Amino acid sequence: MPRRTSGRVTLQDIADRVGVTKITVSRALREPQRVSLALRQRIEAASAELGYIPNHAAGALASGRSHSVALLIPSLSNAVFSDIQRGIEEGLRAAGYQLLIGHTGYSILEEERLIDTYLGYGVDGLVLSGTRHTEHAERLLRRAGVPVVETLELTPTPLDINVGLDQTAAGRALTETFIARGYRRIGFLGARMDHRAQLRMAGWEAALRAADLSTEYCLTTPQPSSYRLGGEMLGSMLQRWPALEAVFCCNDDLAAGALFECQRRRLAVPEALALAGFNGLDIVEATTPTLATVVTPRRRIGEVIAERLLARLGGQPCRPHSEDLGFEVRCGGSIG
Amino acid sequence: MPRRTSGRVTLQDIADRVGVTKITVSRALREPQRVSLALRQRIEAASAELGYIPNHAAGALASGRSHSVALLIPSLSNAVFSDIQRGIEEGLRAAGYQLLIGHTGYSILEEERLIDTYLGYGVDGLVLSGTRHTEHAERLLRRAGVPVVETLELTPTPLDINVGLDQTAAGRALTETFIARGYRRIGFLGARMDHRAQLRMAGWEAALRAADLSTEYCLTTPQPSSYRLGGEMLGSMLQRWPALEAVFCCNDDLAAGALFECQRRRLAVPEALALAGFNGLDIVEATTPTLATVVTPRRRIGEVIAERLLARLGGQPCRPHSEDLGFEVRCGGSIG
Repeated sequence: MPRRTSGRVTLQDIADRVGVTKITVSRALREPQRVSLALRQRIEAASAELGYIPNHAAGALASGRSHSVALLIPSLSNAVFSDIQRGIEEGLRAAGYQLLIGHTGYSILEEERLIDTYLGYGVDGLVLSGTRHTEHAERLLRRAGVPVVETLELTPTPLDINVGLDQTAAGRALTETFIARGYRRIGFLGARMDHRAQLRMAGWEAALRAADLSTEYCLTTPQPSSYRLGGEMLGSMLQRWPALEAVFCCNDDLAAGALFECQRRRLAVPEALALAGFNGLDIVEATTPTLATVVTPRRRIGEVIAERLLARLGGQPCRPHSEDLGFEVRCGGSIG
Repeated sequence: MPRRTSGRVTLQDIADRVGVTKITVSRALREPQRVSLALRQRIEAASAELGYIPNHAAGALASGRSHSVALLIPSLSNAVFSDIQRGIEEGLRAAGYQLLIGHTGYSILEEERLIDTYLGYGVDGLVLSGTRHTEHAERLLRRAGVPVVETLELTPTPLDINVGLDQTAAGRALTETFIARGYRRIGFLGARMDHRAQLRMAGWEAALRAADLSTEYCLTTPQPSSYRLGGEMLGSMLQRWPALEAVFCCNDDLAAGALFECQRRRLAVPEALALAGFNGLDIVEATTPTLATVVTPRRRIGEVIAERLLARLGGQPCRPHSEDLGFEVRCGGSIG
């Protein structure tokens, strides 16, 4: 296979086409204000025509700036991360930065590999989903000298910038809503059980303990969330604990799946069983009844991340700190 | 803000720590078989301890190989793309390649910018969702000398490798299933109307024309798909055409939203209205009734892409060609 080194268009090719020296072409591309407008336009036309690819790697090495930021997310199908991504992307694009993405599949080892690769490419900043990383990744990040954002959950010991919400408090607040409405046998249904799912479960447990209620109605699995899994797990819970009154599902996909299972069994929600999810995705407003959930400010989180990154890239100093952007419990029709 | 050039660990730092020359360190990292195992282990330990970041940009420039492949996808929340990504990632990872991701938001201009950036970083291959690109992007890709895959839809004029399915034939086959079951007033509900949605609609239209049925029951919008939108649009269609018998929604999200709207209106599916989606996502099996759909071989598409890329990167020649991986119409409970 031909390597790009042979087929690639060089500055010399553009220079030959325009009839100037290679140095003139280089200057026109790097410092356009130093050449005439007419010459610049001829050089740009020739670059476009020949399909010239500016060498970002070389550019980044020379200038120490690549005008790109990497975002590492655990899932490509979960709208939680795409909402954050949209918020970040819009803010960065307005400032001329590009967002590059890596998929960790909820693995901190894969996260480490992606951090290594993107730092090696000279990105100007990194955004990580979560606050747990490998020791080696933390060392890489501390030495890299670029702004690092940890998002979604909060930590008392951020690497640098930390923007998110208190997942435990949110899980607790939702469970307290169930308790305030008079529910007593309140279950927890959790899948994947990544760090944020664990924090939400801790909030559920804390609320029940504070109200002197049982924490036994709990079913979790390391399997990834899906509608079907939510239905299957709810079935298992109802079989084991027929007197269950309410179920807090650790995300909206599972809650919707649990609702579909209730519909299949002709089990009235919320009369026979109350349900709640977490995140406030589109689906919670579309089902009948609508689903109770914790609405998380994902878009806003993305926007704030972009603001903080741009401030740092613009030279503003900042000490490592956490920003709590809050949440909102929304009752929907699935809690009676 | 300190730049990485000042804080970054160099080969000299590792050499100093181990007590050897910088050239020895460089050799140990690039050609480990040329140094003793004991020395290699000491150098690797020092690299890890100091947090050394191998400079991929410089490495790629020198060797012409970065061991990474870029995948550009239009949406980060649509499971269609995450299934393809998983298939590609597994295949590539086994061969030591890493997958980097770019989000185009269904914009071919954004796709062009990402192609430019990733080619500039020296990726070894590119996977594009779709077969429509800007002219400039096509020039960049033709000059880059790396394998390029266009996926999801098929084209008679692929840039290089093309792996996907015939979206028009799939839309037609689903519509023919409605016709074969005796439905006559068959609508099309489409959102976003990207190229693949247009191809599916063309299949719907072709099947109706071939059966001498009306193509008037058609409602589309450039808005992105969501459950809520599917419900709203179904409401508009029923208001305008109360005698509608069946609706082909251009994806499963819209079909599920339409089903939720029928549930809200207590409109029996499929007795009062038949519904179908497209893709075969998890949700079509979870709802009551289950939803008719076209199951697309997304995971397999990803696996085949990885195989074709690795063959090319391994030096096997190949002429541009298209591979059709087919589809399957699944009836579910939403067609009577």
